This record gives sequence, C-alpha cells and structure tokens, in this order.
Amino acid sequence: MSVVTVGETMAALAPDHVGPLRYTRTMGLSVAGSESTVAIGVRRLGHPAAWIGRIGDDELGALVEMRLRGEGIEVYARRDPDAPTGLMLKERRAAGVRRVHYYRRDSAGSRLSAADLPDGVVESAEVLHVSGITFALGDSAAETARVAIARARDSGVTVSLDLNHRRGLWTDADAVAALDPLLSEVDVLFASADEARLFASGTAADLATALRSKGPGTVVVTLGAEGAVSASAEGALRVPAVPVTEIDPVGAGDSFAAGYLSGLLRGDPEDARLRRATAVAAIAVSTHGDWEGLPTAAELDTVDGRDITR
Amino acid sequence: MSVVTVGETMAALAPDHVGPLRYTRTMGLSVAGSESTVAIGVRRLGHPAAWIGRIGDDELGALVEMRLRGEGIEVYARRDPDAPTGLMLKERRAAGVRRVHYYRRDSAGSRLSAADLPDGVVESAEVLHVSGITFALGDSAAETARVAIARARDSGVTVSLDLNHRRGLWTDADAVAALDPLLSEVDVLFASADEARLFASGTAADLATALRSKGPGTVVVTLGAEGAVSASAEGALRVPAVPVTEIDPVGAGDSFAAGYLSGLLRGDPEDARLRRATAVAAIAVSTHGDWEGLPTAAELDTVDGRDITR
Amino acid sequence: MSVVTVGETMAALAPDHVGPLRYTRTMGLSVAGSESTVAIGVRRLGHPAAWIGRIGDDELGALVEMRLRGEGIEVYARRDPDAPTGLMLKERRAAGVRRVHYYRRDSAGSRLSAADLPDGVVESAEVLHVSGITFALGDSAAETARVAIARARDSGVTVSLDLNHRRGLWTDADAVAALDPLLSEVDVLFASADEARLFASGTAADLATALRSKGPGTVVVTLGAEGAVSASAEGALRVPAVPVTEIDPVGAGDSFAAGYLSGLLRGDPEDARLRRATAVAAIAVSTHGDWEGLPTAAELDTVDGRDITR
Amino acid sequence: MSVVTVGETMAALAPDHVGPLRYTRTMGLSVAGSESTVAIGVRRLGHPAAWIGRIGDDELGALVEMRLRGEGIEVYARRDPDAPTGLMLKERRAAGVRRVHYYRRDSAGSRLSAADLPDGVVESAEVLHVSGITFALGDSAAETARVAIARARDSGVTVSLDLNHRRGLWTDADAVAALDPLLSEVDVLFASADEARLFASGTAADLATALRSKGPGTVVVTLGAEGAVSASAEGALRVPAVPVTEIDPVGAGDSFAAGYLSGLLRGDPEDARLRRATAVAAIAVSTHGDWEGLPTAAELDTVDGRDITR
Amino acid sequence: MSVVTVGETMAALAPDHVGPLRYTRTMGLSVAGSESTVAIGVRRLGHPAAWIGRIGDDELGALVEMRLRGEGIEVYARRDPDAPTGLMLKERRAAGVRRVHYYRRDSAGSRLSAADLPDGVVESAEVLHVSGITFALGDSAAETARVAIARARDSGVTVSLDLNHRRGLWTDADAVAALDPLLSEVDVLFASADEARLFASGTAADLATALRSKGPGTVVVTLGAEGAVSASAEGALRVPAVPVTEIDPVGAGDSFAAGYLSGLLRGDPEDARLRRATAVAAIAVSTHGDWEGLPTAAELDTVDGRDITR
Amino acid sequence: MSVVTVGETMAALAPDHVGPLRYTRTMGLSVAGSESTVAIGVRRLGHPAAWIGRIGDDELGALVEMRLRGEGIEVYARRDPDAPTGLMLKERRAAGVRRVHYYRRDSAGSRLSAADLPDGVVESAEVLHVSGITFALGDSAAETARVAIARARDSGVTVSLDLNHRRGLWTDADAVAALDPLLSEVDVLFASADEARLFASGTAADLATALRSKGPGTVVVTLGAEGAVSASAEGALRVPAVPVTEIDPVGAGDSFAAGYLSGLLRGDPEDARLRRATAVAAIAVSTHGDWEGLPTAAELDTVDGRDITR
Repeated sequence: MSVVTVGETMAALAPDHVGPLRYTRTMGLSVAGSESTVAIGVRRLGHPAAWIGRIGDDELGALVEMRLRGEGIEVYARRDPDAPTGLMLKERRAAGVRRVHYYRRDSAGSRLSAADLPDGVVESAEVLHVSGITFALGDSAAETARVAIARARDSGVTVSLDLNHRRGLWTDADAVAALDPLLSEVDVLFASADEARLFASGTAADLATALRSKGPGTVVVTLGAEGAVSASAEGALRVPAVPVTEIDPVGAGDSFAAGYLSGLLRGDPEDARLRRATAVAAIAVSTHGDWEGLPTAAELDTVDGRDITR
Repeated sequence: MSVVTVGETMAALAPDHVGPLRYTRTMGLSVAGSESTVAIGVRRLGHPAAWIGRIGDDELGALVEMRLRGEGIEVYARRDPDAPTGLMLKERRAAGVRRVHYYRRDSAGSRLSAADLPDGVVESAEVLHVSGITFALGDSAAETARVAIARARDSGVTVSLDLNHRRGLWTDADAVAALDPLLSEVDVLFASADEARLFASGTAADLATALRSKGPGTVVVTLGAEGAVSASAEGALRVPAVPVTEIDPVGAGDSFAAGYLSGLLRGDPEDARLRRATAVAAIAVSTHGDWEGLPTAAELDTVDGRDITR
Repeated sequence: MSVVTVGETMAALAPDHVGPLRYTRTMGLSVAGSESTVAIGVRRLGHPAAWIGRIGDDELGALVEMRLRGEGIEVYARRDPDAPTGLMLKERRAAGVRRVHYYRRDSAGSRLSAADLPDGVVESAEVLHVSGITFALGDSAAETARVAIARARDSGVTVSLDLNHRRGLWTDADAVAALDPLLSEVDVLFASADEARLFASGTAADLATALRSKGPGTVVVTLGAEGAVSASAEGALRVPAVPVTEIDPVGAGDSFAAGYLSGLLRGDPEDARLRRATAVAAIAVSTHGDWEGLPTAAELDTVDGRDITR
Repeated sequence: MSVVTVGETMAALAPDHVGPLRYTRTMGLSVAGSESTVAIGVRRLGHPAAWIGRIGDDELGALVEMRLRGEGIEVYARRDPDAPTGLMLKERRAAGVRRVHYYRRDSAGSRLSAADLPDGVVESAEVLHVSGITFALGDSAAETARVAIARARDSGVTVSLDLNHRRGLWTDADAVAALDPLLSEVDVLFASADEARLFASGTAADLATALRSKGPGTVVVTLGAEGAVSASAEGALRVPAVPVTEIDPVGAGDSFAAGYLSGLLRGDPEDARLRRATAVAAIAVSTHGDWEGLPTAAELDTVDGRDITR
Repeated sequence: MSVVTVGETMAALAPDHVGPLRYTRTMGLSVAGSESTVAIGVRRLGHPAAWIGRIGDDELGALVEMRLRGEGIEVYARRDPDAPTGLMLKERRAAGVRRVHYYRRDSAGSRLSAADLPDGVVESAEVLHVSGITFALGDSAAETARVAIARARDSGVTVSLDLNHRRGLWTDADAVAALDPLLSEVDVLFASADEARLFASGTAADLATALRSKGPGTVVVTLGAEGAVSASAEGALRVPAVPVTEIDPVGAGDSFAAGYLSGLLRGDPEDARLRRATAVAAIAVSTHGDWEGLPTAAELDTVDGRDITR
Repeated sequence: MSVVTVGETMAALAPDHVGPLRYTRTMGLSVAGSESTVAIGVRRLGHPAAWIGRIGDDELGALVEMRLRGEGIEVYARRDPDAPTGLMLKERRAAGVRRVHYYRRDSAGSRLSAADLPDGVVESAEVLHVSGITFALGDSAAETARVAIARARDSGVTVSLDLNHRRGLWTDADAVAALDPLLSEVDVLFASADEARLFASGTAADLATALRSKGPGTVVVTLGAEGAVSASAEGALRVPAVPVTEIDPVGAGDSFAAGYLSGLLRGDPEDARLRRATAVAAIAVSTHGDWEGLPTAAELDTVDGRDITR
C-alpha cells in the first residue's frame, strides 16, 4: 500500500443552484472526507491507497463504501450499529460564498477508535496521511490518529499531516493545543497560510520555515491562487498556481496533498512535487465536487498543454 | 386560534427515484413533522392554526419557518443557537417500501422545553393537538407536551392526541408506559390499529371501545385502505376509505386527523367528521409529499365527484 | 394534403411532479392544441397533414412552429406582432386530478381571422378537421372556422368536427348555440358522451343516432375506458377500448380522431376505423404528453401484440 | 409596519439553461415583482414589511401569497375571481442577454384599485415604497398608487419611488408624462442613469441634482457596476459597487432600494445608506433569482470580509 | 470466489420519462450486463463474486469498472485500446413498452478473447455463470465462453447458463445451433418459457423436463408473473411469483438467477432456491434500474413481511 | 435553395455537469453535425437551406430528422435499415476541457453514398457547403462529397469547404492527402490556424495566402478569440472577435461559416462577411449547445448593442 489514510468520510448533499439552501430545488448525494479525498487523489495517479474509518450500519454507510471501493480504494471501515454515518449539507449561499451544515456529532465516523486500526495496514504503508480534522472529532478519534502516527513511526512509514483547521468543529486554541505536540512526529506538513499563522507569523516563507523548526522535514504552505511555498532540506521553494476557471474550490487542499504525495512516492525532487501538487489541484477545482474531478496521471499530463489551462 | 399544535418539525430530503438511496440522482428539500402537518391540514380547510416548536439558528430552521409561515400557520419557534434543526432523509427502497434516516438526536426540536410555550397561545385555542412522537424525543420535550396538555385542560381546550408510535425512536414498552397515563387527559384520540393493539386487543371496534374506556371521549382507529372506526358518545361508527391511486402514503394519519378536527371545529356530527377525515386523507396520499397535497375546503368538495377518485 | 386542421396551438408547461403547482420543482415546455394533435396523429400514421393558425411574433410562437414542423406538419401560421402566443400551465393536482391554467385570452391564436386561411390549402385537402374549441375563442376565430368549413364543402372536402367542449372557455348554452347549426355541415362528428348529452339523451348508441339525425354522415361517441360507439351508414357499431396503463389521458380524444381519420383516408370500413382509433388512443395515453406518444403505423401494429397492452 | 409596498407580483418561470427558450429542458417556478422584492429585502434586514396587491383566485395567486408570507411579509391581496394572476417567462437568450415574456395584460394585479388599499396600513407605515411599473399597468393601478402616495403624505409617511421604467409596458413619453408630476410628492427617488436621462442630462451627479430640483429630498442614481450617486441635503455623494461574480442581475435595483431604505429606517447617514444599498445589491446579484439571495443583516456583515467578494 | 461470471457489461443510458426517446428531456447513465447483474446479485446476498470481461480504454470503461468495484465485485477486465466500451440506450416508448438501442457492434466487450480469462479464477470458483448473449457477440466472445465452461468442468466447478436469447443480436436458428450443443456441458440451466420453446414444446413443466433431458442436472423455466417451474433430481417443482408493483422489469431474469445461485451456494434444497430466486426478482423489479434494487440478505428477509409485498 | 450541405448528423448526448462523465447525473439529448449546424445557421439568418445525409431507420434517426425539420431545413436523408444513426457523447471533463466519445463507426451517416444525392438539389443551390469530416468517414462518404462538389462545379454552384480536421477520425497525413487535391475545386475555404498549418506555415495572413494559392478564391483562417483573417480578391483582411462570455465553444467554426455564407448570399463585401461571421459565432458560443444559440437576423442586429456583448 503506497498511502494509508485515517479519518471520517461522510455522506454529503450539495445543491444544484446558487442561493440560500431553503430555495434549492434539487440536491445531489455524494461523499466527502478530507482523508479519503487524498486517498482517491493518489489512487487516480496510480498508487495503491487505503482508507481506515468507521461508518454507520446504514444506507449512507453503504454509500461511503461504494464510492471509495468504486475508486479502487481499499476500505477498512467498521460498521457501527449504534451511530449513524455522518452527513453534511453544502450550501452555495452566493457566488464564492459557501456554507456547510454538519450532522456529524456522535456520528459513527467520530467514534473511530484505535481498535479500528487493522493490524499491519498502517505498518506496511509507504506514507500515512492524517488531517487535523480527526483530532477535532473527539477523544477517541484523536487517540486513533495518534496511535496510527505512532505505529507509522515505529515502522519507518512516512507521516504526512494536513493541519486542516475547521472552525466549525473546535476553537483555534484547542486546535493549537492538540496539533502543536504532533509536529515533531510528522515528516510532511501541509498548512494553508491561515492555518500556519496559528503557529507562527511573517511571510509565507517565514511561516514554512518556522513550522519546519518544530520538526517536520518538509512543510508546504498553500496560498490558493498564489501557489505554494515549501521549506525542506532543499531549502525554500515557491511555485505559482496553475491558472484555471475555478468551479468548486472545496477539496483544493486535499488535491494538492494528493499530488504532492504522488510526487514523493515517485521520488520526484521537491520542486517537481510542488508542481505536480498545483497541477492536480488546478484540475480538481475546475470541476464540480470535492474529489470527482481529480486527474489520472494521463489527464495530468495534459495540464501542461493549453486545454486544461485555457 | 382554532388549533394549536406542539412538536418537532424537521427538514426532510426525499429522493426523486425509487431504489436504494445511494443510487439516487436528485433529492428535493422540504419539511416534515406530524404536528405541523396537522396544522397545515386544518389551516387549508379554513381554520386558524399555530405550531409551537424549536428550531436551530440555521438555514434549515429558516426553511421550517418559511414553509409553515407560507402556509399561513402562526409559528412560535425559539431559535436554539446550540443545536441544529433536525433532519430526515427519506428513502423509497422499492415500490411500497419506505425507509427513514433520522438526524434528529439532540436536535433543536428535541430540546423543546416548557419555557418555549408562549403565554396564552395554548390557553386560547379551541383544540390542542399533540402526538406520541414528542414523548419519544426526550424528557424535556415530553414534559413540554404534558405541560401543554395540562394548560389546555385548565382552560377548557379540547385535547387531541395521535399515538403516532415510531419504533425508530423508542420501544413499545416505553411508549405504552409514557402514553397510557395520558389517555385520561385526552378528549380525542387517534390510533392506527397497530398502535391500538399496544393497549388492547380484538377487532377494530373492540380496540376503539377499549381505548375509550381509558378516558378519551372519542377514539378513532384508522385502518388504512379499510377506512376507520370510531367509538364515541354516538356509539361505534365505521367509514370506508375513499379509493384513490396512492402516490405517497406518508402523512395519511396526520391528514386524517386534520380532516377530523376540521369537522369537530365545524360542529359536524361524528360520522361527518369521519367522512371528512377520510376525504382529506385520500387527497393527501394521492400527491407527492407528506403535506403538500392537503386539500382546501373547495378542493375537498370535489372528492365526492368522479375527478378525485377516478 | 390528406388532412388540414385549423385552430389554436399554444405553448404548454407541465410539471414533473404530482401536487399543487405552487410546490412543483420543475416544469417542461411543449406545445398543445387539439387540432395540431390531430394533425400530428395522422402525419405519424403516414398521411400528409397541415395546420393553419396564428402565433405571436415571439419565442413561444417559434416554439410552436418548431414542434409542428419537426413533426412534418405543413405550417401556415401568420405571426401576429400585436398579440402573444397563447400559453397554458398544466397542473397534476393529485393522481387523476388535472387542472389547466390558460393564458390565451387575446392571444394571437384567438385572433385567427378568415384572411389567415391560405388560398387553396383547405380546398385541396381530403379532410378538413376542426374542433369546437375554435368557436369558443372569439368571433374572429369562430368565423374563420366557419369559412374553412364552407370552403371545404364547396370543394367536396370531407368535413370532420370534434365537439371538444371546454367549460373553461364558454358555457354549455353558448356552445350548443354555436355548434348545433354546424352539425348539418359536417361529415364526421366526434363527441364524448358528456358532450353528446348537450344535444341529446339516452344510451351512447342513442346519442350517436340522435346526433346523426342532425346531419353528419357518421357520428362517433367516445366513452373513454368503455371504448366508442358509432352511428353511420353501416349502422350502429361499438368497439371496446384497448386496455393500457394510463399515464396521461390528455389528448385521448384527439388521438382517437387521428386514428379514425387515418382509417377513413385508407378507405377502411367503419369498424376498422374505430379499432384503429382506439389503438392510437391507447398508445397515446400510455405516454407522457398530449401528442408526443402518438404512434407511427409501424408502432401501431404492435398494439395487437402483448407488448403494448401488457 | 416599517415599509409598505404597493404593486403587482406575478408568477415567474425561469429556465435552467442558457439558450433560446424553445430549447429549454426545465423551468423553475417562483414569483417576481419589483415592490415585493423591496419588501422582502427590508424584511430580511429586520424591518416589518407589508405588500398590497391583487392576485387571481387561482393556484398562481396561492403561490404569490405563499412565497411572500413565507418571507414574513404581511400580505394584503384581494383575490380577483375574474382575472388570472399575472405571469412572466424569463429567457436567458445567451450569456448576458435576457428577455422577458409577459402574460400580465388584464391580470388581477393590473386591476388593482384604490379600494384594495386596506384602511390604515399605508397610514401607519414609516415608508411607502412604489415603483413606476404600477403606473404603466393601467389607469386603475396607477390611480391606486397615486392614492397611496396621497394618503402617505397626509399621514407624514416617507414616500419612496423607484422609476423602474419598463419599455415593454409603455413608451418613454408616456412614462415621463405620468411620473414627472409625481416627483414633487416623493421623498426618496431611485433611478438608473438610463431612467434619469428621461428627465435630465449630464453626468450621474448632474442627473441626481436635476431630479432633486423637481422635489425629492433625496435622489439616488444607480450605475450598476459603477456604484451609485446621491443628491441629498448632505450634498452629492458617490459610492462604488461591491465587486462580485454576477450570477443574476435581475432585481439589482430593488435590492439596492431595500438596502437603502433599511439604512434610512436605522437612521444611518446618507453615505452609510448607500454603502448598505450596494452591499445588499452585491449579494443579491451573486445568487440565482430576483430576490431569493437577499441577505439578512447577519449575512450582510460578512460582505465586508473576503468571503462574499472573493 | 463463490461465483465467477463472464460476459459484456456496457454503459447504459435510460430516460427519465415515458415516451419516444426523441422527446426525452433527461437521461441517466449507468451500466448494464446480464452477467454482471448476476454477480452483483449474489454479492449483495453475501457471496464473493467476480466478473471477467473487456472494456474500452475510455471513460465509459472507467464507469463500468467503478460501478462493479463499488458493488464489491472483483473485476478482471482488460482495457482494449482499439475498441470503445459498448453502449446501450433504453427507451420507455410507452407504459409497458420498452425498446433498446445497441451501440455494441465491435465494442471492446464483444472482442473478449480466451486470453482475457485470468489464470485460476474460473478454476477456483464454486459456480461459473454465463449467458447465451455472449455466444451472440461474435466468434471470439463465444469461444471465450466455451473455454471458460471447459475449464470450469475440468476443475469441478458448477456451470450455470442462462439462455438469455436476444433477437436483436442473432436469429432463433443461430441461437439454437450455438446453444444446443452446450446443454450437455451445463449443470444449471435458466430459460424463460419463450426461450425454452426454441428447444421443446408443451407446458412449462414439459419444457423443463425436455431441456433437462439434454443434460443439465437442473432446469429452471421462468414464467414472469406466473412464477417458475424447475426440473431437477428432486423432480418437478413450481413456485408462484411474489406479487409486487412492478417498476422496471429489466433484469428480472438475472435477479432470479442470482437468487437461485445464492440458494445453491447455501446448500438450500431446490424449493428454497426457487423461493429465494422469486423473492430476489420481486424486489429487483420493484425498483428503477436493472440491478440497483437487488436486495441484501437482510433486505431479502423483509420480503416475507407485508412491507415489500404491499 | 440558398445553401445545400452534405454530411453526417448524429444524435448527441451532453452532460449537465462539469466533471468526468462517469459521475454525471443527467444528460440531455440533441443532435450534432458540422454541416447541419451550418445549414441551421444560414436558415436562421433567413436563407433557405437543405441537408443531405443518411440516418438509421431508428429512433435517433427520427430525432435527427425532427430537429432539422423543426429548424426549417429541407432534409434529404435516406433511412438505412442496416446501420444505426451515429451517436456521440460529450464530456465536460473540467472547465475548458472537453472530450468527445464517438459511436459513429459503420453508422448510417458514414455509409452515405453518391446515390443518396437527390437529383437536382445540389445543382440548383447557390452554395454547396461540405467539411473535411465527411472525407474521414470512409470511402463511400468521401466519394459522395467529391461527387457533390463535382456536380456543384458543373452547375456553377459556389463550393464552400471547411477543413474541420478531426484527429479522432484520421491522421494528419491522411487528412492532407485527401483534402489537398480538393483545394483547387473550392471557392471558399475555412480553416482554423491549426488546420491551415497542415498545409502551410507562417502568420495567419501567410497561411491564408498560401492556401489561397492552391485554388480557392477566398480563404478564411479563424483564430478563435483573436478573430479571423481572410485572403481574397479584396486582399488580406483581419477582423477581431466579438468579446463575449463563452459558455460552449463547440460549433464556433460552423457558426462562423454560417455567418460568412449568409454575408456572401447577401452580396456583402468581404469585410462585412467577416464581421457577420464573428457576430454569429459570438452569439453561438455564449449559449449552451452546438447550434441551439444561433441567432436570427433580428437577434444578430443586437450584437452591435451592449446587450449581447456585455
């Protein structure tokens, strides 16, 4: 297994129209989860990937399983008979203004426990990828992520963390308190500039350097339409974003992480990893859905041509 | 106010296709709640109606308010900043096989408290209508319903109760334990044959008579396509259902109750109330949605003609 | 030209769901007109057909033209710069209960005038088909239909009239006053039993005979699911309807007329005409839309097999 | 009541696709009316609002009532048994090219009469808002608006007028003849630059000043993406528009007026009123629908952040 | 692996409305294939299942793979760079009248070759299931099916064949010539009464017995709404169909086969297999889609209750 | 007949969403064909137009006929009982990235033969328009196009050719080999810059001049958003594109050709032809669909105003 991810994947309803949700006429049903989006992203680029989580013993749990298996992800998901699969409703309140309504409190996914980690799956991966969201879901889920990281480190598995701070789930202070101690356990760290500023200050390059001083071998600070900066053993690097017509920005960070990890697995140098990451993110945000538009390796190659970036 | 209802109204998503929900392509968003359906039903028939409940301070709460106000219902709904509006997903698993997925645990609606009852609203009503569902939502909601009933009785307001047993919310035993003591407080009781059998046995007429012996002046046992039986001061009565092409049976019981209460408010004799109830239910189940198809008084009159019952 | 029809064709919006129109989520746009439905019906069965009417110089007029031309109908429609194309909204209030909302008062179609009849088109037809609707649209439209009938008779063209009484457009008394004098000008008359009762009484056969005594060589009284009876030089005949799963009964009468006229054009004997008429109507009502489901001659043949009538 | 509006609200059908209407595949049904949009706008911002109009005694009239009541608007609408509710079809002919097809001639709304003005409603308002459209609908409707203005002035109610010139309803000359005499009766006047040029010439500031010289205490000339200028006792002011991704420009002017009147009701100074107006308009045009996207006060605050204006 | 199937799975487009396809407004995209439907059916009932086929190296091939993997099917599908994935358009011409339009000539699936059979997959199965369709797709596909059967027999794997005669693909005579020699190689044979009559005559029981005399240990003749008859070592058996509201009859035969094979795998006696088969088919035909409605074992149990068979 | 076109028109399915086709939820059905788009374009601008092709004797053939007839095109299409109507699936893989999936190999349209050319139709046209696509469909179709050109030349009919190179159908080398010999037979040649570079090199003006030296009296090289250049007896001309919000670029070249040919038919000078061509293309690409948005002459006039080009 090239990449193993751990986290919650929910059912997700998204409206077909822009406006207050109460006036929407139709909604489509899919699934959403930061970690499973990363898994799908690396899988489409050709790397075996697994997702570990927990789902309800219900129809929406069956939906999560179907979508991830359909994408070729190896799914390790205990079916919890006592809690429903988490659910989120997306709202496109206005052009460029999105809101999310969560129904994930006490969801099956948030009840993930260390016992849900199957023997040997994390241990035999090349990369373990987790996100800050899991630490916000509750003690049991947070502990599970910590155990996964510990097992990965014990087995020499590269540990990747995306800070992914969700203000709807916890406070800035709680997030820093939970995530700061982890930084020394992490090999690759992804953070948006906003997230990085919870831990440091200065320019994007300053942020990356400061975070790197806390432990990670590589820190990538993503800057949206401004691209990304990286601090690593290769020093500081900056890449621009690939200009595209943005259709759905949700999932941009996860797509970026997937592209980066794919480059890492290929043994690409840091600047090639970053360029791969921006190319993957560019295609992902120019399609509807968090993850549906993630590119295959073949599709990725066309990003250099004029078709994708018109 | 002719009728005041108390209970939870949720946002409700329903698929456009028949099949497992995970394969649905589009869902429509509306609201659902047994008590608010009764309120809408009596309002369409020309009687002022109110609904008392609690909603989240969120978009789906705004949806509940919009729909009920749009129907001319007086809405008394505290906006709870700490809990989301309840949500349910409907599934049409196969022709004639429906499933419901609730996201209402710890919802704003289930946190309804006696303090949410506005002064004088219940007291000045002609009829207070509650359902067994509210007693299953938690101690606070159950207590609220009990307080409402007590206030109604103190003010000489007719009390109407629909047993409305939901096995997804509590056990048969818990339902009986909670609802049995209420029967002596109730003037009009609605029960399906299945529900009535939790308290008694025998034929439909036996069930009605047995339940009436526990206190209610009138007991109506609904029998679906078989019509309904009533035990009241006028003795035992039976009416057949109005034959229609059923499109969506959900809401049939609430529609029936609305039609019955309308007859009661008009001062109709028992058999006319029952016929009005079956006519309202017939039109309601021959349209999509729990309550959207409820008839106006003018539309109701056409049920005697061939158009409705073709 | 085998059949020439004269009348109003409107744009027509129909909801995708069953319920009060105000809760519909999507509507589809098509066209509707009794006479153009007859034209499409005979055209699909292989006979050249024309429609004469008037449309607005607007987008919905372009829609009417596009649909009829797309069906291979020869269209003679003056574009009126001063009046809009007529419009109707269909409502499926409940299963089996339909309502229609007209926006056709002072429409271009209702302003049809005798000057709109192109030279020689009616005169060179085998059959002229008109309906009672046109007489209800206003003096100018009614006069146009009368002129068309007169020209047809002068040229030896068979005149076909469908009474098509629309209570939303005029009263029973007005309809009888306008249509009774026409009966002596007509060769083939179609009437539903309800319509026939405006002029006579008794059984269906009585009705047909009584109407025939007013002039038409052949009178066909349609009885919906009961089939049809005919009074003609061949005497009284009765045919049963073809049993089908009804999806949309609108257009049944026009489909029947189209099938009958096709049989007449083929030189079929009366009973074969009636059977052809019922077969065409059966297929038409088992599809969505007034006219979209009308069969080709090839499709018609399958009605005798089990596929259509399962 | 903070704001009372008088005018016609119609049912409105809008296509889901861009292209000639005859190729549209689905349409959605809502309501549209300049004055009711203003009412909804101020209501969402927290001010009680009422709408006075007339509707047909039909399903589309029920739709108008449902939508406005659902928004918390107090509705004073006589149901006219003799005329249908007005209807409009929107067409998105091409990107940025919209067309409207009206079915409102002789509609119930256009038959509004002074007798439809309920006693005391206009008189007890803080602001009466009318638009030039009502003067174009016919003598009776125009007279109604004039009576409403007179009553407002007699009661010391602020009178707000949006010129809202619709070339599909009347000529420039007729509009000027009808509206010019009104200017001396008005306290607040809204006009687009195009509309203002019917009465004056010069720069936007010139136009505002010239119109103000005709009577209104305040004149606001809206300039679309260029913002707005105002001439008032505070002198000449200019505010830029808030840059957004425009999704549906229809309703921009009404949204602007709603925001301005809300500021007026709050006692904001002129420049704050204008900024509030542009913020409300910005959010409204960045959602589908004329009025569905109007912001609440809470949503309005976010416009200063990057989310709304990204 | 419990069941291995071999055959073609195509992309399939189905309209949302009933009527001629040229008037359809929306179509949904899924996949269709007799053998993969059987695989999904047995998989949902809890048995590991595999599908062997060939797909194009294109988006629709990715669709086939996604859907089958999403259902938990092990997919062995070579991607053919030189031929597209097969495609079919479904048409619901009228209620109860379906038509299919194939775009599968020279499709990747029809180019299936014996070299596409992975080593050991057929050999290690408990049951190999094939259908007559594959023999109609061309020499290479037919040969592949024959090789699979031969390998199965060599390894003691039970061979199941559904005659599945498609008149759109070949003639009756060609079908008999190709399939008759196979009967002696088959352990379980499924045939509709129509198909069975290509090989024998008489009552359903006669047909089953006559076919059994050609070799198969068990022959099941399906009779649609009349149920099924079986001829086996246990003698002749007949089971009725489970009465349901039929929504989509396509896939009924494959669902039946899946239920039967599940019973066989469980070691059920013949009559229990047949009852399981009719129950699975009943649920499948009461949902939209060929296979989407196939039941899990848990859902199957409810078929005995009133919910499914209302 | 002003313009006669010869070529293949297919059924075309297009998704409603942006993303990989396998995740599309709904598709719409229309028709597509370069030559018929040109025919529709000139017809909408007021010139009689005809299309010669071949379709299957199937529902999708009926669709092609219906759409073209609905647009007022004279259709000469033999119905081939042995081959299906061609089909294409459009995919909007990401914003600005389109893919096409053809099911046209051995389609009825590709089997077009010289015998399908009706007597006198090409001969009596003012312009014959063909495209390079037809030469890629197979020997028979290519020969048909050659015969049509020969007949046109013999009758003094202007010959118009759009190179329209489709790399999905043949190689660059094959295209040049087939099309180069034709250039001397052509009066008006349309080529994109990419296509022109198959035959020459240099600037756009160079390309036009070089191609003109091979025979055509006029060569127009289209440059997308950069406009177009022309080499003709009037020398070299360049026009800019009309700036619009592009919604669907497919059909831009055909729209351009239609506008140009309309100008030619009107006797406009070269620069007016080019401006007409760019205006037609601008409107066409700012609506959904290949041809649905093509303007009428009246609509074209508005392009000079601000509405179309906002």
